[in-house]
Amino acid sequence: MDFTIRAASLDDCKDISRMILKLAEHDNVSDQIKITQRDLEQDGFSKNPFFHGIIAEVPEHFKSRDGHTKVGYSLYFYTYSSWKGRAVYMEDLYVMPEFRGKGIGKALMAKVSQLGLAAGCTQLNFTVLDWNKSSLDFYRKQGCWDVTSDLGYHCMRCEGDALEHLGGHLHFTDQSQ
Amino acid sequence: MDFTIRAASLDDCKDISRMILKLAEHDNVSDQIKITQRDLEQDGFSKNPFFHGIIAEVPEHFKSRDGHTKVGYSLYFYTYSSWKGRAVYMEDLYVMPEFRGKGIGKALMAKVSQLGLAAGCTQLNFTVLDWNKSSLDFYRKQGCWDVTSDLGYHCMRCEGDALEHLGGHLHFTDQSQ
Repeated sequence: MDFTIRAASLDDCKDISRMILKLAEHDNVSDQIKITQRDLEQDGFSKNPFFHGIIAEVPEHFKSRDGHTKVGYSLYFYTYSSWKGRAVYMEDLYVMPEFRGKGIGKALMAKVSQLGLAAGCTQLNFTVLDWNKSSLDFYRKQGCWDVTSDLGYHCMRCEGDALEHLGGHLHFTDQSQ
Repeated sequence: MDFTIRAASLDDCKDISRMILKLAEHDNVSDQIKITQRDLEQDGFSKNPFFHGIIAEVPEHFKSRDGHTKVGYSLYFYTYSSWKGRAVYMEDLYVMPEFRGKGIGKALMAKVSQLGLAAGCTQLNFTVLDWNKSSLDFYRKQGCWDVTSDLGYHCMRCEGDALEHLGGHLHFTDQSQ
């Protein structure tokens, strides 16, 4: 099947938003999604974007049963390791179920890798839920390794009241502005 | 003890590089460090920086036994969650051993939180090695939670030959330039 991988534009945010919801349904986390099409437009396509995106698109005659030609996407951004330097982080990788097994997911991941290498990155990082064995198998086949299992890395998070409290702590101690 | 938290500048890269090596010694990973002072200067203080930094500094009369007044640092950058939107990632948080227990680490973390909140972020993320119990305790006290233990997130990585191979895959399938 012919498909194209290209940079996402503002006009793709409606489809990215649709696919983010589909990916969340697959991961059983639909209730966690706070991001709207408008958030994506503001945060990804303004002067200092928080992320970049790529789209997998098929020709009109291969469109999905419900009429979509944008059938996959990846969101990524650049990060930094104080050990190894420039890195690229793949936040999402998604292909609509009826288009899987055609190399589209691998092509999206390859494009993120290619863009990362071109920007001087030496690592591609991402996270996977441990129950998602089919994704883990796919990534292992591409030569990826599990930093959490092998080195003991744990992802930690601060949010909500705890983050507000922490950020407010500086009213008392911060001497810089 | 008086101390100041301020944005890092190009002139701080020598001290940041020194402290990155000290942090790596603490984590038993000194052999993993490929980053030099020059990398930090190029990657953090050019037009499109890959990271930002803050420095904890003490007055001259409180300087360390070996003469340093820059006694702690944090590196951070902005990321994105396709569930929750803007986020800030704390790559490193370090305070020289002789200056611990004085609130400097918490003040550095609070500053990253404050900067993240000001930029519209709803999450502060970071990773901790699972054997580093004192750090885990410190972070839990600040209200942070362990996304790996609680939700099953695993950090995955592709690098070296595997990344080159993946990035090269598009010579065959990519139709975009």
